[in-house]
Amino acid sequence: MQKPNLPKGTRDFGPEQMRKRLFIFDTIRRTFQRFGFQPLETPSMENLTTLMGKYGDEGDQLLFKILNSGDFAASLSELDLATGSKKLTPKISEKGLRYDLTVPFARYVVMNRNALVMPFKRYQMQPVWRADRPQKGRYREFYQCDADVVGTDSLLCEAEIVLMIHEVFRNLGIQDFTLKINNRKILAGIAERIGIPGQEGTLSVAIDKLDKIGQDNVLIELRERGFSDDSIASLTPLFSFTQNNTTNVLTELKQWLHDSITAQQGIKELDETLRLVNQYGLIDSQVEVDPTLARGLSYYTGAIFEVKANAVNIGSVSGGGRYDNLTGAFGMPGLSGVGISFGVDRIYDVMEELNLFPTATGQGTQVLIIPFDAEARSVALPLLNQLRSAGITAETYPDLAKVKKMLDYANSKAIPFVVLIGSEEVQTGQLSVKNMLTGEQQKMSADSVIELIKK
Amino acid sequence: MQKPNLPKGTRDFGPEQMRKRLFIFDTIRRTFQRFGFQPLETPSMENLTTLMGKYGDEGDQLLFKILNSGDFAASLSELDLATGSKKLTPKISEKGLRYDLTVPFARYVVMNRNALVMPFKRYQMQPVWRADRPQKGRYREFYQCDADVVGTDSLLCEAEIVLMIHEVFRNLGIQDFTLKINNRKILAGIAERIGIPGQEGTLSVAIDKLDKIGQDNVLIELRERGFSDDSIASLTPLFSFTQNNTTNVLTELKQWLHDSITAQQGIKELDETLRLVNQYGLIDSQVEVDPTLARGLSYYTGAIFEVKANAVNIGSVSGGGRYDNLTGAFGMPGLSGVGISFGVDRIYDVMEELNLFPTATGQGTQVLIIPFDAEARSVALPLLNQLRSAGITAETYPDLAKVKKMLDYANSKAIPFVVLIGSEEVQTGQLSVKNMLTGEQQKMSADSVIELIKK
Repeated sequence: MQKPNLPKGTRDFGPEQMRKRLFIFDTIRRTFQRFGFQPLETPSMENLTTLMGKYGDEGDQLLFKILNSGDFAASLSELDLATGSKKLTPKISEKGLRYDLTVPFARYVVMNRNALVMPFKRYQMQPVWRADRPQKGRYREFYQCDADVVGTDSLLCEAEIVLMIHEVFRNLGIQDFTLKINNRKILAGIAERIGIPGQEGTLSVAIDKLDKIGQDNVLIELRERGFSDDSIASLTPLFSFTQNNTTNVLTELKQWLHDSITAQQGIKELDETLRLVNQYGLIDSQVEVDPTLARGLSYYTGAIFEVKANAVNIGSVSGGGRYDNLTGAFGMPGLSGVGISFGVDRIYDVMEELNLFPTATGQGTQVLIIPFDAEARSVALPLLNQLRSAGITAETYPDLAKVKKMLDYANSKAIPFVVLIGSEEVQTGQLSVKNMLTGEQQKMSADSVIELIKK
Repeated sequence: MQKPNLPKGTRDFGPEQMRKRLFIFDTIRRTFQRFGFQPLETPSMENLTTLMGKYGDEGDQLLFKILNSGDFAASLSELDLATGSKKLTPKISEKGLRYDLTVPFARYVVMNRNALVMPFKRYQMQPVWRADRPQKGRYREFYQCDADVVGTDSLLCEAEIVLMIHEVFRNLGIQDFTLKINNRKILAGIAERIGIPGQEGTLSVAIDKLDKIGQDNVLIELRERGFSDDSIASLTPLFSFTQNNTTNVLTELKQWLHDSITAQQGIKELDETLRLVNQYGLIDSQVEVDPTLARGLSYYTGAIFEVKANAVNIGSVSGGGRYDNLTGAFGMPGLSGVGISFGVDRIYDVMEELNLFPTATGQGTQVLIIPFDAEARSVALPLLNQLRSAGITAETYPDLAKVKKMLDYANSKAIPFVVLIGSEEVQTGQLSVKNMLTGEQQKMSADSVIELIKK
């Protein structure tokens, strides 16, 4: 008999991991909701016509495609086979697993355009699938947690997202993070300034490596990519901004990029966003303006966000930005919006590494009731009912086993209290309660047990 | 440009539906947890070697299979094509979407057999996929909510499940339901009693239709299925049990099936289960012993449960039972357990039809802040921050629009309160609060707003 195993790149989440993951999901969900974002869920499968062509050629390759049901091979000819996998696929598959939450969201907006009241604020927390080569920290199934507001270009939305990011990480207990913010228009202005207008994409690919390879190597890469000496020389100011003071960075940028109308517009947007954040009264802001920050340049047109946990070397834990054509591919052009996405897997790793999960994530069993014999159940079972009615998570060991075995069970599930019930307890009604951490044991009434555990 | 649409048999869940669905999920999850069940999540995909052969031939057909990544066609020959879809499938697909939560659970238990402490109580709430023909109330993607305890044959587990079912439906607000309970051994005893030992499966297929087609037609069907007149005649007592009194049914069964050791064992188990339920102190029990209840006969070996909502004609909303070979197919025989599954889609329909969803499911926006102009934001934004810090779900309209438009927005999201901020409010600090249900408007301080909304 074959030993069962998991498809590569996928994972089981057992009780311990699930408790921690649920803590993260709940915290993010509650914060999203408090900011007025409404829940949405879309199907795991989408038609390939919806998914294909939205993520570039590489993305199309990475889509998990679902084999058509029924006798899919019936209509295939030898000729079809000879055309190769790429041309064969559409003949035997018309559905795929979602690759992200953005395209399904866009599809939903277009299908419900007449019913939705704008601005529409939705959040979505669901798994996505990518047929990527699995490696450390990269999985074929993973959750995304996205919040977006569409149908408005108000910068209040950017400000709200800055605020919400702070809320999420503080509610998770991650205090030490940096929220980098930039604007696509500033990147465009830099490209203009160094004489390569419209090429901020290529520029950013190199600049993005600044943290990893340093300034000198970035310049070498730019040269290799065909940038002229003049262009590269004029880029120098970019590496000397006062990053830890947002006002100074913006002033320096304003001067450096004074010729670019686009850049000035981007700086103005960023300035206004930060002014609004300030007006909210955000305490202890972790915002840093970083004119080298570039991500999602194929769709972001305004603000760009990225969050890193400072104490852990793990890449970004959250990212987002403003786009102005969410639904264009589905025939509904010009819909502007701004969104943020939280990476649950990386957040989990950060919290694990920094030991930030609360010891009681609120889901484990609080008390195990141990009846010594069948007769003791006459006390154990009503007590169990009473504890649960009081909102306490309680269970009893179902078999009449040795007490040691039952205590081991309590320890294995990290249950903090056990109630031991023998003949004496049945007679007197006084229960023996043991604190599994301290080993301390005392006798008390059922009501006192409830009081003790609730404390 | 093609109008986007959904794969057939799948659904989007918009904000209104999601709020209700989340209420159901949260309620079930909290109840599962309070009974000591621990969360588990398994990947959406499993290897086809794990899934195939577990659900019968029909089930194998209904599995959604995922096309292998890369150049899957490269190794195919004309010969492969000629063999037909069934033989071609394993050559181009090695993974499938999970069909239920039981097989992945069994796979998990086997893979973690050395680490798990028995009895192991897990719950799992995840979508499953079936390539069924879509029809009213039947979807290709739907959630299952399962709780199982394995590694013990204690009848306390059956009793706990009876209790938990009552808890779940009461917490949902569904008061009028019936929990039917039977035992596979009683069905086996009936088959013995009427002279067709081992054929309780065939017998049950006909008996199961009793509700729909009536006693006469059941007898006709039995005749068509080749049951002798003697067998059919001796079945008569089955149709005359006093169903609404569990003690009487058990007594009558005991007499009728006195010859069958198997049946007596089943009756004893049922009797003991109900005695334990009683010992817990279950108030207002909805349990009915129904010796005609049959489901899952290919795996249930002891107790069988089924729940129906009485006021709605929708089939069962929950079902489960005891099995004694969960993991046999994966080389780990003899693992006994008992489980229950809740059908979220049907529960949703029942609650919708009976209007049982609480008006505030706890997720919607409670207050919309409406600043009349940019200046008013200096009051609006700090207020927003203050409200959210107090745990209130609040938002502001991001654009400076006409007041009517903003009030329409509040109505469309069913937001109960709005705070209107104009120049007067900016000067005095007194805020105008409007109750959107009554239309009543009054002035008050920020602190009073918090008090009002929290009430």
